[in-house]
Amino acid sequence: MPKIKVDLGKNSYDINIGVDTLRNIGEVYDPKVFTEQVAIVTDPLVEELYGSRVRASLREAGCQVHTIEVPRGEKYKSLKMAAAIYDQLVALGFHRDSTIITLGGGVIGDLAGFVAATYMRGINLIQVPTTLLAQVDSSVGGKTAVNHPRGKNLIGVFYQPDLVYIDVKTLTTLPARELCTGLSEVIKYGMIKDKTFFEFIENNAHHLNTKAFEEEDLMRAALKVWTTIVAESCKIKTAVVEKDETEQGLRAILNFGHTAGHALEVLSKYQKYEHGEAIAIGMLVACRIANRLKTFDEGKTARLEKLLTKLKLPTRIDNLSAERISKAFWVDKKVKGGKIRLVLPKRIGEVEVVDDVPFAVIKKALKDTGAR
Amino acid sequence: MPKIKVDLGKNSYDINIGVDTLRNIGEVYDPKVFTEQVAIVTDPLVEELYGSRVRASLREAGCQVHTIEVPRGEKYKSLKMAAAIYDQLVALGFHRDSTIITLGGGVIGDLAGFVAATYMRGINLIQVPTTLLAQVDSSVGGKTAVNHPRGKNLIGVFYQPDLVYIDVKTLTTLPARELCTGLSEVIKYGMIKDKTFFEFIENNAHHLNTKAFEEEDLMRAALKVWTTIVAESCKIKTAVVEKDETEQGLRAILNFGHTAGHALEVLSKYQKYEHGEAIAIGMLVACRIANRLKTFDEGKTARLEKLLTKLKLPTRIDNLSAERISKAFWVDKKVKGGKIRLVLPKRIGEVEVVDDVPFAVIKKALKDTGAR
Repeated sequence: MPKIKVDLGKNSYDINIGVDTLRNIGEVYDPKVFTEQVAIVTDPLVEELYGSRVRASLREAGCQVHTIEVPRGEKYKSLKMAAAIYDQLVALGFHRDSTIITLGGGVIGDLAGFVAATYMRGINLIQVPTTLLAQVDSSVGGKTAVNHPRGKNLIGVFYQPDLVYIDVKTLTTLPARELCTGLSEVIKYGMIKDKTFFEFIENNAHHLNTKAFEEEDLMRAALKVWTTIVAESCKIKTAVVEKDETEQGLRAILNFGHTAGHALEVLSKYQKYEHGEAIAIGMLVACRIANRLKTFDEGKTARLEKLLTKLKLPTRIDNLSAERISKAFWVDKKVKGGKIRLVLPKRIGEVEVVDDVPFAVIKKALKDTGAR
Repeated sequence: MPKIKVDLGKNSYDINIGVDTLRNIGEVYDPKVFTEQVAIVTDPLVEELYGSRVRASLREAGCQVHTIEVPRGEKYKSLKMAAAIYDQLVALGFHRDSTIITLGGGVIGDLAGFVAATYMRGINLIQVPTTLLAQVDSSVGGKTAVNHPRGKNLIGVFYQPDLVYIDVKTLTTLPARELCTGLSEVIKYGMIKDKTFFEFIENNAHHLNTKAFEEEDLMRAALKVWTTIVAESCKIKTAVVEKDETEQGLRAILNFGHTAGHALEVLSKYQKYEHGEAIAIGMLVACRIANRLKTFDEGKTARLEKLLTKLKLPTRIDNLSAERISKAFWVDKKVKGGKIRLVLPKRIGEVEVVDDVPFAVIKKALKDTGAR
């Protein structure tokens, strides 16, 4: 089973990737590293699916396990909910050497990661992502955050976990839409860093849907593909993060598709698009900006669009004006000195950071993608 | 004028110490390092005294300066107030390369430092401490935090500033009590690390009061002593922080006097004692625990008590039971695996971390110091 080392000096940690490994999670407990006090932060649905097996394994290993439930939904990734978790940790008598285990998707990981980072200036953190998006993106790299009404992830810190523990089999319980949306970030890794990986996704696209989980043999084959997908994605993200832990430069390339994507999420008040869906459209917008700047081949944009469509990801903006979307670029964090800093493709497997894209070009690319 | 380099790798920064330097603060503005967008976070009293000269100097240097006022008082060092500042930063359109300047005491520095650390996962931060306590302690070392109703500084992160800019002349506008209370941490540095510095304080105690600021010549002499006091304190703290940026081990010695001190603050709901006053008493409690353990000479405790008294710091607990205070030790962060970890003196200039002090000894030491 793949094990990836993330080398960040004293902030280094491992990513363990396996199939059906949640029932053995207690193996990670090492009394030399953390005390037996553990709080699992999760949501009601994930709790229902996996809570009891995770608790059983940790208890068998000697942990004292508490469970903190957070309602499902992006709107609970808030400072208010963080405050509610602090209250519970205080009530439980949690100290600096206690541990938070996040069990769930990106909302849980970001929120409980932020709490772990800020409670007593940082306690132990084990990320156990159960969605594809969390496995390939949010659990790796140390970004934690809560949302502000005026912007996603506006309040947060960089805080590296002590371990990321991924059970790929949790993907089999995801709804079809959630599985699709996570693929958006996977495709992004191919686009920014690895053409071979992009082609692996193209060639294995038929495995990448919930139908493949309905029959035993198909599932076995699919989980093999998924393990590769998750491991390669984590490797690419890790390589970028290692070179730029706190997003000073290189790490910006991970934001490919995210400036337009975030603008869509903000303008639709996080109601219309899942994160990955907004990013799928955002990547196409970035491609079309590069097409218009003549730095990226239009045929490659079509190839990306074809793959997104095959994987049931959206490719068109509807019912929003290019003017409004492009203005919303400025509220995003990826703005340098009042200038928009965009990540644009050069070819499949390589992107570049471009600072001074004319407003008019951005608007045209948005219109090319369906905006009014 | 002393300039101290704090060497923390990529988190390194300088501490500039001068007399009457606030009016030249604009000199720190370097457009290569941060954008012209600057928010001064301050309180109404400090704003009244120093706001206009700081703004004038920064504006002259080309900064766009905004001012965010926070009401005075420890109770505003809250998550709620942090949220209110986030809102203002969003409204001002602050980005990752904008800058927060904290102008004020420890409450302002800790609160606005926490906001700078967590807004967009960290923006530029310049600490301009105007109280003695903030100059010698809270502005150096990267601790930021807000309080939780159940514990001081329970929510926070380590975040190093880009610069600490100290104008020692601001000490001349402090009320007598505030000047005294800051001396408590100064004496602490002597106790934990530097007997010579302890003796310097003993020998110059007559300069260390507000009376010395009432006449020009006396003031000049006093400010010279204060400059040494602030610089030596920063040096000692810096040396400790450099070896242990995130309080894994050595840095714990800075908590000398703080476990009992925090318990007193919590039990009196932060109403009765200024922080330094609680620490003064806390140091005596730590000394008396060591006296009872026979690891520290009683005569030295008397010598510390004499210096504290000379500097008008309190030395007695009144109207609280030893039982309650010692129980409150456990809510403090300085607890390791459920055990109390205390910093106890060995001699003047050296302390040690002791893990298993019997509850009964703690109670006796508290009673020796006036507790019921």
